[in-house]
Amino acid sequence: MLITLITDFGSVDPFVGIMKGVIAGIHADARVVDISHGVPPQDLMAGALILRHSVPYFPRGTIHVVVVDPGVGSERRPLLIQCDGNYFVGPDNGVLSLTLEGKNPNRIIQLSNPAYHLQPTSATFHGRDIFAPAAAYLSQGLAADLLGETVSDFVRLEWPAPIRAADKISGKIIYVDSFGNLFTDIRERDLQGLSTAKLVILLGKYEMEGLSSSYMGGGAQKLLAVINSWGLLEIAVYKGSAQRRTGAKLGDTVELRILK
Amino acid sequence: MLITLITDFGSVDPFVGIMKGVIAGIHADARVVDISHGVPPQDLMAGALILRHSVPYFPRGTIHVVVVDPGVGSERRPLLIQCDGNYFVGPDNGVLSLTLEGKNPNRIIQLSNPAYHLQPTSATFHGRDIFAPAAAYLSQGLAADLLGETVSDFVRLEWPAPIRAADKISGKIIYVDSFGNLFTDIRERDLQGLSTAKLVILLGKYEMEGLSSSYMGGGAQKLLAVINSWGLLEIAVYKGSAQRRTGAKLGDTVELRILK
Amino acid sequence: MLITLITDFGSVDPFVGIMKGVIAGIHADARVVDISHGVPPQDLMAGALILRHSVPYFPRGTIHVVVVDPGVGSERRPLLIQCDGNYFVGPDNGVLSLTLEGKNPNRIIQLSNPAYHLQPTSATFHGRDIFAPAAAYLSQGLAADLLGETVSDFVRLEWPAPIRAADKISGKIIYVDSFGNLFTDIRERDLQGLSTAKLVILLGKYEMEGLSSSYMGGGAQKLLAVINSWGLLEIAVYKGSAQRRTGAKLGDTVELRILK
Repeated sequence: MLITLITDFGSVDPFVGIMKGVIAGIHADARVVDISHGVPPQDLMAGALILRHSVPYFPRGTIHVVVVDPGVGSERRPLLIQCDGNYFVGPDNGVLSLTLEGKNPNRIIQLSNPAYHLQPTSATFHGRDIFAPAAAYLSQGLAADLLGETVSDFVRLEWPAPIRAADKISGKIIYVDSFGNLFTDIRERDLQGLSTAKLVILLGKYEMEGLSSSYMGGGAQKLLAVINSWGLLEIAVYKGSAQRRTGAKLGDTVELRILK
Repeated sequence: MLITLITDFGSVDPFVGIMKGVIAGIHADARVVDISHGVPPQDLMAGALILRHSVPYFPRGTIHVVVVDPGVGSERRPLLIQCDGNYFVGPDNGVLSLTLEGKNPNRIIQLSNPAYHLQPTSATFHGRDIFAPAAAYLSQGLAADLLGETVSDFVRLEWPAPIRAADKISGKIIYVDSFGNLFTDIRERDLQGLSTAKLVILLGKYEMEGLSSSYMGGGAQKLLAVINSWGLLEIAVYKGSAQRRTGAKLGDTVELRILK
Repeated sequence: MLITLITDFGSVDPFVGIMKGVIAGIHADARVVDISHGVPPQDLMAGALILRHSVPYFPRGTIHVVVVDPGVGSERRPLLIQCDGNYFVGPDNGVLSLTLEGKNPNRIIQLSNPAYHLQPTSATFHGRDIFAPAAAYLSQGLAADLLGETVSDFVRLEWPAPIRAADKISGKIIYVDSFGNLFTDIRERDLQGLSTAKLVILLGKYEMEGLSSSYMGGGAQKLLAVINSWGLLEIAVYKGSAQRRTGAKLGDTVELRILK
């Protein structure tokens, strides 16, 4: 079983490498894939979003470990959630929740069994001491319920959905990638039944007509809107950065007008 | 068979991890090595250069995937090129071409068979939907010609060679590494038969006499010229950055005078 | 046997990937884990510190390769040090030494046998030409003494220990992580027998009373002191950066007053 890692540890410190050392010490043949260590520090929503849009591309049975954990060492619970054949390991602060929206997990376990924690257990790095060991033991075939006691709930992040009226959809920018592409929370399925040529997309003072079928659609340096690889409406610039071009930022409103 | 990845995705977004998820879903035992995800956005020349100088250090039979792809979703073709026992997978925009300079590929295949694409196929992320699957199937032993139809050509980048006169060689800075070392396009073999002590290297107002045998050659903080690990003439500063020291940038001229 | 890599190569250039290509060419089944490639350029102390605090979390028998190597190509020796069942490969400039403090290595070998170097061997990249091959051959089971001749000493970095008086301990900031947490050289064991409630920690004009048991101890945005995951006294801010908050930097003094 594959183990993936999502953290806000960045690519400078040795913390991710240390987690891999702990995993290798428990299960020498474990296979680990980095999804991202560039989650902005303590940004639960970004971590949750990255998890949600990565899970569908991993094989069933993958163990996803997410360590964005400002409350480490406090009362917040360390969890394992089993759902649709996948495993999610991380703190109970909502970072695991977006990928589970509308789903009923098969099992939620609080990782409370110290026999499967690294000893001594620090108050500042449960990624190393609790989450990495849990993932390693699971990948080795350990029965999940040995890791702690079953609990019945977990923290869910509130996720503001786009607002839909007869002639418009009002959404927000929820992710900006390193190319400066602006991802909105408006999904491809929100546009079903609409003629994409009859859409006007508004971001601040900028206006785009219709949806392009690729980044080249607009010609060099022109702002355009596409449905991107996460199935979301995205504002982009061919060979450029829509973020730099528009000055837009996370949370900004994007409005989609539907012409008659 | 090893799969390598070169992209301009950076180390913040989950896109590289997602490609690895797709690969693992097709071929659970595939081995993937990251060469670089720090290619400047959409910089074909940098991607092509990194590929060219990395290939010689990987075992024969490696599958090199390069995703620097501003034209994704447009008419540009997705390709597999087989040459000297290695495989090159990426967009047909020249990024694969420098490593094939002066070579005759055994086979060029347009990755047009949708049976080996991820479905649905996005218009913005062929790294995930076309290139990663192609590499995964190849690494599993799939016959290359099942991936699409054979084509006869591919886009080649123009590579400006250094200009040689009787008493000088005029080259350019083609790569600046993160230490601030300035790589030129003047190769060790361009210097064959010359006495390295009788060379003067000029970069703007800076002048270096002779070639040093190591970074320590010049003493701390002194500009020096060496033949580097890619076999190229490089301008460096011991324990410092030649880029910060000289203000030089990509494309700047470096002149090598040959004394009598 | 696992191979780990610590370098100052950053995450932009292909140098780490090239080392992995060399390793795979020698030993196709070698397992490689990145600990950090974010060591500040040529910062031996940072590399040595990262190695020291990572080693305990890797299984016995791991081969740790460290390439922070300003003197590459000069007289400084390439070494393999065997100690407590682990292997340390890198330049003899002190970067391997902190993890060996107070220990007697079983064997020190100068990697002088050219049969196990990449040919031709560059003057600027021994990570690729000497250290990666040595690690790959070792991981394959090659007897260590075939790699070169046994030598009797290695360069040790001077490590300033905290200064202890009856009523205070005076230490320094030795590492700042990407969250802005300030790691000091004051260890948990330096505090043994002291009542943690009766401690006052001073950093410049900032003062913290007692030790917190987690980052949440101080409440949002409050400076606090904790024992961190490396067993060191750390100054932090819950959901914030102690570095930005205090302006502190590497080498700054942290004083710990012991109240009666």
